[in-house]
Amino acid sequence: MTDSSYPPISEQLDDLDEARTKGRRKMDWAAQHMPILEHVREEFLADQPFEGERIAMAMHVEAKTAILVETLAEGGAEVAVTGCNPLSTHDDVSAALDTHESITSYAKRGVNDEAYYDAIEAVIAHEPTVTVDDGMDLVAAIHEEYPELIDGIVGGAEETTTGVHRLRAMDDDGALEYPVFAVNDTPMKRLFDNVHGTGESSLASIAMTTNLSWAGKNVVVAGFGYCGKGVARKASGQNANVVVTEVEPRRALEAHMEGYDVMPMAEAAEIGDVFLTTTGNRDVVVREHFEEMQDGVLLANAGHFDIEIDLEALDDLAVDRYEARDGVEAYEMADGRRLNVVAEGRLVNLAAPVSLGHPVEVMDQSFGVQAVCVREMLENSDAYDAGVHDVPDELDEEIAEIKLAAEGVEFDSLTETQREYMGSWDHGT
Amino acid sequence: MTDSSYPPISEQLDDLDEARTKGRRKMDWAAQHMPILEHVREEFLADQPFEGERIAMAMHVEAKTAILVETLAEGGAEVAVTGCNPLSTHDDVSAALDTHESITSYAKRGVNDEAYYDAIEAVIAHEPTVTVDDGMDLVAAIHEEYPELIDGIVGGAEETTTGVHRLRAMDDDGALEYPVFAVNDTPMKRLFDNVHGTGESSLASIAMTTNLSWAGKNVVVAGFGYCGKGVARKASGQNANVVVTEVEPRRALEAHMEGYDVMPMAEAAEIGDVFLTTTGNRDVVVREHFEEMQDGVLLANAGHFDIEIDLEALDDLAVDRYEARDGVEAYEMADGRRLNVVAEGRLVNLAAPVSLGHPVEVMDQSFGVQAVCVREMLENSDAYDAGVHDVPDELDEEIAEIKLAAEGVEFDSLTETQREYMGSWDHGT
Amino acid sequence: MTDSSYPPISEQLDDLDEARTKGRRKMDWAAQHMPILEHVREEFLADQPFEGERIAMAMHVEAKTAILVETLAEGGAEVAVTGCNPLSTHDDVSAALDTHESITSYAKRGVNDEAYYDAIEAVIAHEPTVTVDDGMDLVAAIHEEYPELIDGIVGGAEETTTGVHRLRAMDDDGALEYPVFAVNDTPMKRLFDNVHGTGESSLASIAMTTNLSWAGKNVVVAGFGYCGKGVARKASGQNANVVVTEVEPRRALEAHMEGYDVMPMAEAAEIGDVFLTTTGNRDVVVREHFEEMQDGVLLANAGHFDIEIDLEALDDLAVDRYEARDGVEAYEMADGRRLNVVAEGRLVNLAAPVSLGHPVEVMDQSFGVQAVCVREMLENSDAYDAGVHDVPDELDEEIAEIKLAAEGVEFDSLTETQREYMGSWDHGT
Amino acid sequence: MTDSSYPPISEQLDDLDEARTKGRRKMDWAAQHMPILEHVREEFLADQPFEGERIAMAMHVEAKTAILVETLAEGGAEVAVTGCNPLSTHDDVSAALDTHESITSYAKRGVNDEAYYDAIEAVIAHEPTVTVDDGMDLVAAIHEEYPELIDGIVGGAEETTTGVHRLRAMDDDGALEYPVFAVNDTPMKRLFDNVHGTGESSLASIAMTTNLSWAGKNVVVAGFGYCGKGVARKASGQNANVVVTEVEPRRALEAHMEGYDVMPMAEAAEIGDVFLTTTGNRDVVVREHFEEMQDGVLLANAGHFDIEIDLEALDDLAVDRYEARDGVEAYEMADGRRLNVVAEGRLVNLAAPVSLGHPVEVMDQSFGVQAVCVREMLENSDAYDAGVHDVPDELDEEIAEIKLAAEGVEFDSLTETQREYMGSWDHGT
Repeated sequence: MTDSSYPPISEQLDDLDEARTKGRRKMDWAAQHMPILEHVREEFLADQPFEGERIAMAMHVEAKTAILVETLAEGGAEVAVTGCNPLSTHDDVSAALDTHESITSYAKRGVNDEAYYDAIEAVIAHEPTVTVDDGMDLVAAIHEEYPELIDGIVGGAEETTTGVHRLRAMDDDGALEYPVFAVNDTPMKRLFDNVHGTGESSLASIAMTTNLSWAGKNVVVAGFGYCGKGVARKASGQNANVVVTEVEPRRALEAHMEGYDVMPMAEAAEIGDVFLTTTGNRDVVVREHFEEMQDGVLLANAGHFDIEIDLEALDDLAVDRYEARDGVEAYEMADGRRLNVVAEGRLVNLAAPVSLGHPVEVMDQSFGVQAVCVREMLENSDAYDAGVHDVPDELDEEIAEIKLAAEGVEFDSLTETQREYMGSWDHGT
Repeated sequence: MTDSSYPPISEQLDDLDEARTKGRRKMDWAAQHMPILEHVREEFLADQPFEGERIAMAMHVEAKTAILVETLAEGGAEVAVTGCNPLSTHDDVSAALDTHESITSYAKRGVNDEAYYDAIEAVIAHEPTVTVDDGMDLVAAIHEEYPELIDGIVGGAEETTTGVHRLRAMDDDGALEYPVFAVNDTPMKRLFDNVHGTGESSLASIAMTTNLSWAGKNVVVAGFGYCGKGVARKASGQNANVVVTEVEPRRALEAHMEGYDVMPMAEAAEIGDVFLTTTGNRDVVVREHFEEMQDGVLLANAGHFDIEIDLEALDDLAVDRYEARDGVEAYEMADGRRLNVVAEGRLVNLAAPVSLGHPVEVMDQSFGVQAVCVREMLENSDAYDAGVHDVPDELDEEIAEIKLAAEGVEFDSLTETQREYMGSWDHGT
Repeated sequence: MTDSSYPPISEQLDDLDEARTKGRRKMDWAAQHMPILEHVREEFLADQPFEGERIAMAMHVEAKTAILVETLAEGGAEVAVTGCNPLSTHDDVSAALDTHESITSYAKRGVNDEAYYDAIEAVIAHEPTVTVDDGMDLVAAIHEEYPELIDGIVGGAEETTTGVHRLRAMDDDGALEYPVFAVNDTPMKRLFDNVHGTGESSLASIAMTTNLSWAGKNVVVAGFGYCGKGVARKASGQNANVVVTEVEPRRALEAHMEGYDVMPMAEAAEIGDVFLTTTGNRDVVVREHFEEMQDGVLLANAGHFDIEIDLEALDDLAVDRYEARDGVEAYEMADGRRLNVVAEGRLVNLAAPVSLGHPVEVMDQSFGVQAVCVREMLENSDAYDAGVHDVPDELDEEIAEIKLAAEGVEFDSLTETQREYMGSWDHGT
Repeated sequence: MTDSSYPPISEQLDDLDEARTKGRRKMDWAAQHMPILEHVREEFLADQPFEGERIAMAMHVEAKTAILVETLAEGGAEVAVTGCNPLSTHDDVSAALDTHESITSYAKRGVNDEAYYDAIEAVIAHEPTVTVDDGMDLVAAIHEEYPELIDGIVGGAEETTTGVHRLRAMDDDGALEYPVFAVNDTPMKRLFDNVHGTGESSLASIAMTTNLSWAGKNVVVAGFGYCGKGVARKASGQNANVVVTEVEPRRALEAHMEGYDVMPMAEAAEIGDVFLTTTGNRDVVVREHFEEMQDGVLLANAGHFDIEIDLEALDDLAVDRYEARDGVEAYEMADGRRLNVVAEGRLVNLAAPVSLGHPVEVMDQSFGVQAVCVREMLENSDAYDAGVHDVPDELDEEIAEIKLAAEGVEFDSLTETQREYMGSWDHGT
């Protein structure tokens, strides 16, 4: 059994009261724009679905996530939480969370590796019945270090693409010993987070980092998946002239039929003013492209990892390299052209200095799914074997309904006759 | 074995030469805008994939389909063709087709039921090795009347939703005795035919039937599936104020998040200027809605059958009913309001008097898939058991590539490194 | 004094009752979608502003205009009307109009030149106090043939660009002897008729004439004035890839900044799929452009006269020329390319076989201005000297207010404080 | 004559070298995206149109303006420059400017009133032949304090609305004694600065201040002038559901016909999520509106002064008021609702903490006009009497041409025949 003496944030901060006030303000802002969690929280308060449960969480401890943590606590759970990245924690939010009688927060910004893992252990020491991860740190630590706890764990939920990817690999090897929901993969997430969240916040981040305008610019969007579609449509909605590059012919055709210029990157490189990668793949913009680009172009990534733009090759080509603005690094070529990389080629809507991460409403949807997933896992634990599980469609739909209700949007429902008609149609006569 | 004395079109028309000239003109127009079939035809001419095959077809015999018929003939097949609806045949096109040495056309407009089925038998009498259907007439007749031919048939392809639906029912009962491709269900069809084809041609048909404008109109789109999205976006692109009704919460939310007003039909009924149904379901606009509508509204259907608008109830409410314009029937209510039904509530982009059916380019894509499906069925017949088969992804992609090439659109392909990276990501480490 | 024995339509038609029923149906349809005229008509009915007046009109006598004619008659005037083009008259509408006790219609379709001018004389024989023209026929005939009537005429109104142009020339020469409103030139007309009316109806006419789709097409719009903007935005809203050509640098820049590709016609000629001229100038698409165009392109005009596309040069280049479809003439080049001219290069939204002229709502606005202009001319005759007059801003605003009210759209009005503030701002302190 | 001992920035800063390096970096960024000034500068370098002239400038001394200052200096002028607002100066840019041998900069951030006016005097002490103002400080000081200099002044240029307004008042009183160009009022400015610049930067500033998303939001845009149109279209392009309020009926109708919901503010207040004023008027959002608003709304101004939202009334209604986020003040109502004011109701694209002012490209256009206006004033001084002058159309067009050339956009020019045809059309026969 684990045993931890790692102190919660309340024992680590000096100016605790001030921090709590500031953290609470941040949380208030988020809560004000998270109607789904607000609704779920009220339901949980009434139903107390988590009574007697202990929930362990390793997430980015900032205002938006904090509302999820509180929502779970209001549902009756004891919650222990820590960060999933030493740089993403807001100490004031962590401190504010920790004032809740059912919440213990160990998250502190900028801790070293040892303290980071001590904090994870401290969370695990609460002997959770449920884990909620953003990057699989808890699942990994429990399987590797505290297998004796697994029997007591009903299940978990995982937020990110990467976490889900690693969990699936573990599952394929037969090594995942309790059920985990792949929250990342729901339709709600693709349609709203990727199309609207990534689309809007990437463009706004670039505009506010560079003081430049979109109107009349040639904006090259690499990839026409959900993120690419979002970026392309929103850039077009700002009067950019959008160019799409793709490797899959049907997506290329889809972009062409929506009225975008489609061409190979080698050709787009010559005319683009801004290049935005959204492919999830590596080496999308490379040396041969840099060589053709115009002076003053912007290079940014809205995909996943910072491998879409080949910065090594760019550095290699450059005769000089300097910070052109906060968040923009200029690579000067031998012929005087300056290629400007925004946010080091990392996810621009998270990594640019002005960036605030995903919009609040988008996280509300994602965390709403998390909250009902935890409830589902506990209520129907028999239905889920060890392994990775897709979020059931009904939960995804439930969240959509809550959001619509919160926005005051009403919609129709099928009549009995209509339901029968659709059924006869689907299943034959 | 079947034996038919039903005469081909060339023996049924008087002014054969004139008809052939006119039919050929229509086909020329279509061919000019069907680059996919043009490309496939050239391939088939070179490769002769259908040498020795006999293809039986029951399709709408008009200019666009005629190019598919010729394409299959140029690939080496003997083709026998007849109509799949006595009212959709263009005699001049039928006559023009029949001049090809490898094509026999039995299609004639306005024939009675007996002649219609005689023509189908005449086609079957050619002892086909492949069948191409639009509504399953050939498959049904062969299974019911000429089961002895089944052994000689390699497979078939079916164009429509309804046909595929009936084939699947047959397949579920174990009654389908040769393989058939469900051409209707490909991604290419949903994205292009439904979104762009239905969207554009429905709106243009309504505008040209009514002499009305879209700008500033409240356009109520029932359903936010592929057709509904197409109609909503294109109407919005004509400066309509689009209102969406839905029964599925995630689709309702998707519409809301795209910026459309979402509300129940009962509410939309009060403010709509134009109502366009795209649900595929029945009773979408009904008596309680008619009672609330404003004077002068337009009611039209872009879904499937003419059951989305409850015309019986409307007739029941009406004190008078008259043809307000060619293609528009006015139902006058007791209080003087006039509700105007376009094209009798049938598919407006096909049934309005000015309508020309789906745009040529859309049929080019759909028929392109048909053509390569027939080739695939013959080349890889071992791969397909009796039953309904989805069109293989590669064929759908091939058509996309051909279309892009025809439009002069180039796109990228994955490098070896990229392919490996994606593979490692998809399948774990 | 004039004296005419030219018979009204009621004495020229055989099947008068049937014609009247059909004409009335057409007018009912128009009236249903002309809320401005409906509102004005009710006001006129109550106020009888035209009591004792005689209004002479030479207009296109079809359903939409007929509602204006009736509106003026309901206001107390005796109205005599004839056509302004022998081919645009609908006899059934003319007959239906003539049933009104205060209206005499002389308009008949297809009359020869002599009868056409006899009809104009017949109208003038009513000794009008007001003239309403579409092309200046009445003003010209009165000045040239019946100058003795001028003293009795309070004023007039002119609908078209061409008419206004000719009137201004007459005015410059000091030859115009009574005041005439230039209805054509109001902001309402530019914004609504040109942007929305021309934009939508041109695209729908082309689509329904050719059976083609806009998605993914390169649509070259020549000119970025009001019509060009309308066409460009609406085509973009149908997912076309719009290319703009211009000769004025600020308009070219405006198009560029809205995200369109801007280039010279010589370059656009090589990539366009559809060419739509909206410049009002001549020789916009000429021989050197035809030589570069792709096989199968469409050429159409949404400008003014049929001189924007140089058909003579095209004919000169062609080795063959034939009707490819109803409303489309194909010019075949020596190298086999076919360039397809829609509606003979005349205004495509009027001249294509399926075209119905401007949308009803657009004419409602334009005719609404006509109606209140006639009232204004009579009520404030002292304010208007002989010559061409712009429509007073208040009348244009009044029509906007009526339209908004008819659509149920409410809007704000300035408070006293706001009015003062704006005043101080505009006029300095 | 004036005599000033006020020191230039180079004598006021300690870490001059570091400041100059940083300032130069900022200027490099701006220059990279100001192709118009780059082009003009090259022309000026070659032609030296300002040889022997002394230009006095009072502008916001930051990177973008600095490029204009340098451009004038490169044209041969001695330039003396100071700030036009003590808070807008960037000392590092001021220092970098001052390194140029023909430029003396007196601008320093945060100086007190006395120093501010001393700096203006120092600039005037250079005995300018031309003045360039942003708010009329130089014109006013010269007319009031140094009238003896007026004889030596050829003319001036004024950048802002307010400055132009005050100049016109002065002109109306016969008090303006040399000619000044009203650079603010050009078509280029309205179309590009207002529509694109204000539209994009206002939305991006709000998004990056609040971490919120536009998709599905009800965004209420008060006013449908150029700024309002820009905001409405760009918000719509981010999938907001835009509501427009207006007081002018034709603009209200224009908004309605573009597909926006138009309603009075009293009604919009109940449904809006974000309120953005663009009217230029006062008291647009007032107490009665605040009372109806939903919890969590955003209030922001993209108009001119901070009087569009009645903050006094809001403060009066509030029971609490606190900084909800950096740049957002929450006003808490008695019933718990929180109304959030962004950037204190001042111009949100300038006053929000993350804001960077107008996009670089927009200032490039505006300053391009400035530059050629100064040249015009000197070259054709005889053509301009004392008073306010509109920028000649040719200069506005010249800038459009330079911009197009810089972007590599080619366009057509009229042929001789076309020019004649247009002429005959315009002037009658």
